Amino acid sequence: MSSVSRRSLLTGIGALGVGAVGVGGLVAADAAGSAAPTAPAPQIVPFRGQRQAGIVTQQQDRLTFAAFDVVTRNRSELVELLRTWTAAAESMTRGQQVPGGASQLQAPPADTGEAAGLKPGNLTVTIGFGPSLFDDRFGLAAKRPALLRPLPKLPPEDLDPHYTGGDLCVQACADDPQVTFHVIRNLARLGAGTVVLRWMQLGFGRTASTSSAQATQRNLMGFKDGTRNLRAEQAELIDQHVWVGAETDQPWLRGGSYLVARRIRMFIETWDRDYLGDQQNVFGRYKGSGAPLTGVSEFDTPDFAARDAEGGLVIPEDAHVRLAAPEHNNGTRLLRRGYSFTDGIDPTGNLLGGLFFIAFMRSPEQFISVQRKLGESDALNEYIQHIGGGLFACPPGVGAGQHWGQSLFA
Amino acid sequence: MSSVSRRSLLTGIGALGVGAVGVGGLVAADAAGSAAPTAPAPQIVPFRGQRQAGIVTQQQDRLTFAAFDVVTRNRSELVELLRTWTAAAESMTRGQQVPGGASQLQAPPADTGEAAGLKPGNLTVTIGFGPSLFDDRFGLAAKRPALLRPLPKLPPEDLDPHYTGGDLCVQACADDPQVTFHVIRNLARLGAGTVVLRWMQLGFGRTASTSSAQATQRNLMGFKDGTRNLRAEQAELIDQHVWVGAETDQPWLRGGSYLVARRIRMFIETWDRDYLGDQQNVFGRYKGSGAPLTGVSEFDTPDFAARDAEGGLVIPEDAHVRLAAPEHNNGTRLLRRGYSFTDGIDPTGNLLGGLFFIAFMRSPEQFISVQRKLGESDALNEYIQHIGGGLFACPPGVGAGQHWGQSLFA
Repeated sequence: MSSVSRRSLLTGIGALGVGAVGVGGLVAADAAGSAAPTAPAPQIVPFRGQRQAGIVTQQQDRLTFAAFDVVTRNRSELVELLRTWTAAAESMTRGQQVPGGASQLQAPPADTGEAAGLKPGNLTVTIGFGPSLFDDRFGLAAKRPALLRPLPKLPPEDLDPHYTGGDLCVQACADDPQVTFHVIRNLARLGAGTVVLRWMQLGFGRTASTSSAQATQRNLMGFKDGTRNLRAEQAELIDQHVWVGAETDQPWLRGGSYLVARRIRMFIETWDRDYLGDQQNVFGRYKGSGAPLTGVSEFDTPDFAARDAEGGLVIPEDAHVRLAAPEHNNGTRLLRRGYSFTDGIDPTGNLLGGLFFIAFMRSPEQFISVQRKLGESDALNEYIQHIGGGLFACPPGVGAGQHWGQSLFA
Repeated sequence: MSSVSRRSLLTGIGALGVGAVGVGGLVAADAAGSAAPTAPAPQIVPFRGQRQAGIVTQQQDRLTFAAFDVVTRNRSELVELLRTWTAAAESMTRGQQVPGGASQLQAPPADTGEAAGLKPGNLTVTIGFGPSLFDDRFGLAAKRPALLRPLPKLPPEDLDPHYTGGDLCVQACADDPQVTFHVIRNLARLGAGTVVLRWMQLGFGRTASTSSAQATQRNLMGFKDGTRNLRAEQAELIDQHVWVGAETDQPWLRGGSYLVARRIRMFIETWDRDYLGDQQNVFGRYKGSGAPLTGVSEFDTPDFAARDAEGGLVIPEDAHVRLAAPEHNNGTRLLRRGYSFTDGIDPTGNLLGGLFFIAFMRSPEQFISVQRKLGESDALNEYIQHIGGGLFACPPGVGAGQHWGQSLFA
């Protein structure tokens, strides 16, 4: 049942509908059951489990990310929505329609339909809770993890409030962009009256790898990105750097993770005029191979002490790879899951695009400390600006019968 | 040579660059020859030919579309840019870098690099000339086809000037969005000082089929789109409706086509609240199967005269499929090549997205007459609005040694 395509579920409407035109009756029963597969079918990432999918899951090619604000003041309405969202998300990850009973001519369809017939595309749907959710509206103030507070100002950022923050976030990743758009559109629809979209971002190409089975991709600066990223196969490092453990003051978050999103604009025209040698010095890597300037292959470990014949550092003092390296950040590492984005051009005719940075971590302090260091001296700062984003606490995975709000609202 | 991946060309930089760090010399010769393949390699659509690629080419999954304004007043600068663009576009369709000689540390790279290592993805790059190009700046006034004038106002449109018009347009289509973005970004870069981006649109999913080998896709209203579209296999109809012939007053355009682009917003939230029965009546088709309301299968011919037991038309008077049908438009047909798009949300929190409509035709009158009819009475008007677009004359294909401006500037 789980491998059935969306097409076969929806197609029935037409055939059965013929006889019903003009009479307004039922046109087709949605035959989709909800039995869990015994083994994952192709392109289906299991939705339920100890951890949320979409974190260490092998990174999919396309993203739609959304931040929502809660507009109801009613706690049970919010919980009910999380229950509804969970069922919808689970169904969509199986390549099935949003559940909603039999289709009726005299009612809006339960699913908006644009993903009907498309493959599941390894869809994952991941939820996070923003600091603002833990005010006095829903009785959650005592449930706020001490580490979940708005990020401090991290110069030289210039965050647009229209692309920043949110009570909730949803990350939809799949190998088909229509599948990810379909998720956000349907969750927004199901949430009407309870939540409202605060901002949304389409990511057209992955710029990181979360599995050693994946080749490294290039960001819009033309450089391989995330070569030193954590990989799912590094189980010990993942436990150490990604999953919230017993140290948290909020048991509901144990087994979860913090998500930091940053909408990073690249000043593409400026970058494109820069010399190859300068570009390579900015990153500390070769543009072609991705190798560190002290190496020959992408995965060679950078030799940060190496000096050239004139005595200068081969990897410059302000190179991105040096400043971001765990070696220079007390071993701090992040699990990155970013995507390239573009929203057309700005009013001056320059391309508006860059990196929609997403990273998962055990504590927001990991991002804050590294970004503070980068903000102070990264050579890349001449070519980029952080213009939006948010911090969210992602709860652990949901077990059978549970919903996204289970651990938080229990 | 043509099937070599971008990766292998760029990778050399890293390895050879090691010895060159700090000396500023050549780091790698770009070994990419330009010999044309004898037979098309996988994922490579031939760039040169009698017609431009990207029109009857089997529609690719992803789009980046850009309109440019020319900012130079110098005719030969413009011609030179078209020559440069042609070489760059041809190279990229082969999965190769933008040509530019050997890479040097002390110069900007000839190619921005983000498509290095990606497959060609059936990339096509198609150029068009807007009415505004034929003013007195470049001595082209006498070369303007009589049919190439700004589209008349077509109510209920509400075109945003920031997403409308342009002296030139470039349509980049491929199965990988990073490949299409790479094209527009590099053409904009090569054009700095000669042209400036006027607007740009990413299309994330195709909504039409231009080959009978392709399954029909769904638009963001959840309906199959373009079921009655022209297909490349219908050679006679394509000749009749798509290619400019001997009738044109401008010989340079013979064998070309007119491109109409329309940025069509869908009022998604309103649509999603509409009943299934109403949605089906708006289109005149079943949402599931795509069959006309008088049929059972997608490709059944609509019976526009059929009436139900109460004597009402089964396909309503104002249904989209009826008003757009060749049967009710003196046989007029278009070759559609549209894509779904989203640019996030609007200031009220509603989704900003819809259909980026592209169609090719022998005369703009084909679009004007059909759209005028739709604008007057299409039931769909309650749920959509045309908010941008343009009209462009696409020249015929380029032969060996020719460039995009060849026929126009000869």
